[in-house]
Amino acid sequence: MEPGARTFRLEELAAALGLELRGEAGRAIRNVATLEKAGPDDAAFLANPAYRPLLASTEAGAVLMQAEQARHFTGNVLISANPYADWARLIEYLRPQPSQTPGVHASAIIAADAEIGDGVSIGALTAIGSGARIGVNVVIGPGCVIGDGVEIGADSRLVGQVYIDAAARLGRRVVVHPGVVIGSDGFGLAMAQGRWRKVPQIGSVRIGDDCEIGANTTIDRGAIEDTVLAEDVRIDNQVQIAHNVHIGAHTAIAGCVGIAGSTRIGRYCMIAGASGIAGHLEICDSVIITAMSTVLDSIDQPGEYGSGIPARPHGRWKRLLVRLGQLDDWARRLRRVEQSNNKEPTRHD
Amino acid sequence: MEPGARTFRLEELAAALGLELRGEAGRAIRNVATLEKAGPDDAAFLANPAYRPLLASTEAGAVLMQAEQARHFTGNVLISANPYADWARLIEYLRPQPSQTPGVHASAIIAADAEIGDGVSIGALTAIGSGARIGVNVVIGPGCVIGDGVEIGADSRLVGQVYIDAAARLGRRVVVHPGVVIGSDGFGLAMAQGRWRKVPQIGSVRIGDDCEIGANTTIDRGAIEDTVLAEDVRIDNQVQIAHNVHIGAHTAIAGCVGIAGSTRIGRYCMIAGASGIAGHLEICDSVIITAMSTVLDSIDQPGEYGSGIPARPHGRWKRLLVRLGQLDDWARRLRRVEQSNNKEPTRHD
Amino acid sequence: MEPGARTFRLEELAAALGLELRGEAGRAIRNVATLEKAGPDDAAFLANPAYRPLLASTEAGAVLMQAEQARHFTGNVLISANPYADWARLIEYLRPQPSQTPGVHASAIIAADAEIGDGVSIGALTAIGSGARIGVNVVIGPGCVIGDGVEIGADSRLVGQVYIDAAARLGRRVVVHPGVVIGSDGFGLAMAQGRWRKVPQIGSVRIGDDCEIGANTTIDRGAIEDTVLAEDVRIDNQVQIAHNVHIGAHTAIAGCVGIAGSTRIGRYCMIAGASGIAGHLEICDSVIITAMSTVLDSIDQPGEYGSGIPARPHGRWKRLLVRLGQLDDWARRLRRVEQSNNKEPTRHD
Repeated sequence: MEPGARTFRLEELAAALGLELRGEAGRAIRNVATLEKAGPDDAAFLANPAYRPLLASTEAGAVLMQAEQARHFTGNVLISANPYADWARLIEYLRPQPSQTPGVHASAIIAADAEIGDGVSIGALTAIGSGARIGVNVVIGPGCVIGDGVEIGADSRLVGQVYIDAAARLGRRVVVHPGVVIGSDGFGLAMAQGRWRKVPQIGSVRIGDDCEIGANTTIDRGAIEDTVLAEDVRIDNQVQIAHNVHIGAHTAIAGCVGIAGSTRIGRYCMIAGASGIAGHLEICDSVIITAMSTVLDSIDQPGEYGSGIPARPHGRWKRLLVRLGQLDDWARRLRRVEQSNNKEPTRHD
Repeated sequence: MEPGARTFRLEELAAALGLELRGEAGRAIRNVATLEKAGPDDAAFLANPAYRPLLASTEAGAVLMQAEQARHFTGNVLISANPYADWARLIEYLRPQPSQTPGVHASAIIAADAEIGDGVSIGALTAIGSGARIGVNVVIGPGCVIGDGVEIGADSRLVGQVYIDAAARLGRRVVVHPGVVIGSDGFGLAMAQGRWRKVPQIGSVRIGDDCEIGANTTIDRGAIEDTVLAEDVRIDNQVQIAHNVHIGAHTAIAGCVGIAGSTRIGRYCMIAGASGIAGHLEICDSVIITAMSTVLDSIDQPGEYGSGIPARPHGRWKRLLVRLGQLDDWARRLRRVEQSNNKEPTRHD
Repeated sequence: MEPGARTFRLEELAAALGLELRGEAGRAIRNVATLEKAGPDDAAFLANPAYRPLLASTEAGAVLMQAEQARHFTGNVLISANPYADWARLIEYLRPQPSQTPGVHASAIIAADAEIGDGVSIGALTAIGSGARIGVNVVIGPGCVIGDGVEIGADSRLVGQVYIDAAARLGRRVVVHPGVVIGSDGFGLAMAQGRWRKVPQIGSVRIGDDCEIGANTTIDRGAIEDTVLAEDVRIDNQVQIAHNVHIGAHTAIAGCVGIAGSTRIGRYCMIAGASGIAGHLEICDSVIITAMSTVLDSIDQPGEYGSGIPARPHGRWKRLLVRLGQLDDWARRLRRVEQSNNKEPTRHD
């Protein structure tokens, strides 16, 4: 991590971010770092309480954290009610992303009737299809394929090697990472005379403003209507979203999750990594699914749900599997013991 | 979904598809839609009985379904013994896919000795290697890489950004979706002197006629012989098929499934989403694996198998995990109670 | 599998590989094959004892195996203490990979200030960014995107359609398969005022010498510091490695595994397919995780761990799920029976 371009006095940073400063107003801050690695001109942060013990040894020039966490800390503090969000703002301030120079690379292939907005940047070896509409200030990195009729809203960024088809419509400020496929055919098959027949997939995909889609994630087009992500949906890497799925606003989905066809997920849900959600379900708002869970039924109450089993040492796990196989037998044995006990008072009459 | 190009009288549709019509012969049908969204000039369908209640309120101009389902329905009906398959035919009829204009995009890179059949379409920024053979009427979309010696059978379609290597041979009418990798090296490693040594992978991949491969799926080349998909195998998105796997004809594999090396899967199997199948197994014909199951042993009887655990509310699931940890203890306790009861008759003598 | 270019006498092969030969010194060997398919001029191997019965019927010209396994075999044998590793060497010897001709394809787009080492081969339609440094003899296949400032060590091979960004640094002899994304943003999100705020990801990725990364695997850049793979880490297809993860030397990770953020995995670990490892954990050296396990806690003892449940016939599995739901009830019933039995001696006084 190379140092940031500029040096700030700590009081400048506090003022810029609207945070209370406790400590040396004039401390020079040049960069950000972790608590462990930070030096005297680095800002660091503490959000996850598990890392609090690192405060004792950190050499950070300032630590951004909640007042509560800072009580016994003698270094410089930027006090924040929401340290992780303010940390994001601090990085943006201290390490602003270089903006992409607008322009179309000479090797890009743009259909004559594609509409390209002002300030758009299109990278090397990217192809843009007929009738595509690319909003102002959109950045499309190298190696992308944007199919016919696709619409990309203003200020969106397709990082590179992204594939979008089926006349999908993306909102504004959408970020799409490499390897993502949007608008592939859903898995629609009918069996007839002993062979599969493909059911044509003619729906599209709509993605709301401020969504982010992680690397190698796939989002199928709808079968008839659209697959929909509402605004501010955040999706990690290698997630599979099948045809006709609807995902409500502000829902976050971690890596390797699979969501089967026609399922509707509410707003403000959080789906932890590697979970699977079956098709044709309704998941209400504010549901949390814990890691590696299998959701086979609709959920109509907010709250946390799961079925992931924590790994154990092999010997213990093997024995537990044996026990599982015995449960049927145990049910009988337990019943027999109960019956025998219930009969006892009379047996001895 | 834009309307179809033409309008049909309902009796025309019935005749074209060979279906019995119940209702207005002259009703004009222009497009397809879901039961919920269909209007008077849309055809809709009912296959999944869960959606039958929608019949009461649908405004569809006609509904394609089984006679049995249509009994109390007063609207127009196209009667079908296999509604989902006939729905596929209806869409093909009403909304035919525009055929790709043959020709090679100027930006495509085609090896001088590649054989390109008549009627082939090759998209922008696609590379085709030496000795590749592309059959008649094949469509290869933009951004593909087709390696040396690869063969693609007639009428196949590589949608775009597909990677095929290792001199893989694809049959006719194969459809491959974006992000698919066919012919990558299998995971062959030998440990020697404390370091991994790569075992060269020199087999290839053979894919039968009418297979379909979903977005971002990977199919490794065989270690020595070939990885094989027989005809009419249907694979969803993000499926991993390791080296030397054989998949029998008409088997369907849903999203996020992983199949480890050298496993053989029979014909007419159905593997539900996110399941994992270990290596070196034999799965016989007509096996169904339910969602998120772990297959660790060969299966020699057709039927349904599974090990996916449905998610529960967190509190109940945590308690169940505690119970699982107690099973060893319970086994002892149950035995003790039984012994004590068995001794009882003598105890009271 | 086409035959190898040359024919060797068996004694030549034995000498070249430093192996003891038992049998016909002059037997001509032209190619490699499996025990099942090998003919008289093929070499085959036996490593997995499960395949030992095939020795009885193999027609291989020679079999490479341990002396122990060869005892009752009357054919020609190349005796090896480590047959799988020597098999790798034998294939390399008999079927050497054609080396890539150095040179840059005319359609590749190379930034003016990229440093390209001697002997480098760059394929069609590959883009290489500003300040990238490509070591000597590196092979970069077609359709790759190498971002600004990326470094690729000598003798590495990016097979094709690989995406590398975030100024990642790869060591020497690294092999990266198609569809891999290295350096994508980690999943860093803070909730503020009811919306997600993206936490800028400014770390990079470091990959040690001799690593291999399977098709469609994703490796996110670190949030602040780097995501790190030490030397000789071997990763299969469709693996997800989140930001800040550290993986120790010689660890192997099978297909479809997901590793959540900031987890550290030791040296010489083996993670079997489709397992998930939660974030912020420490897994010590020499840990084996069995297939489809969920690792939710740190592990500080070497050994084997798991939680994958083998699939059962559907009826039995459904009953077992019912039993699981009854465990709470059973706990009460078992306690009641025990209490009743404990009271008994007094009841009959």
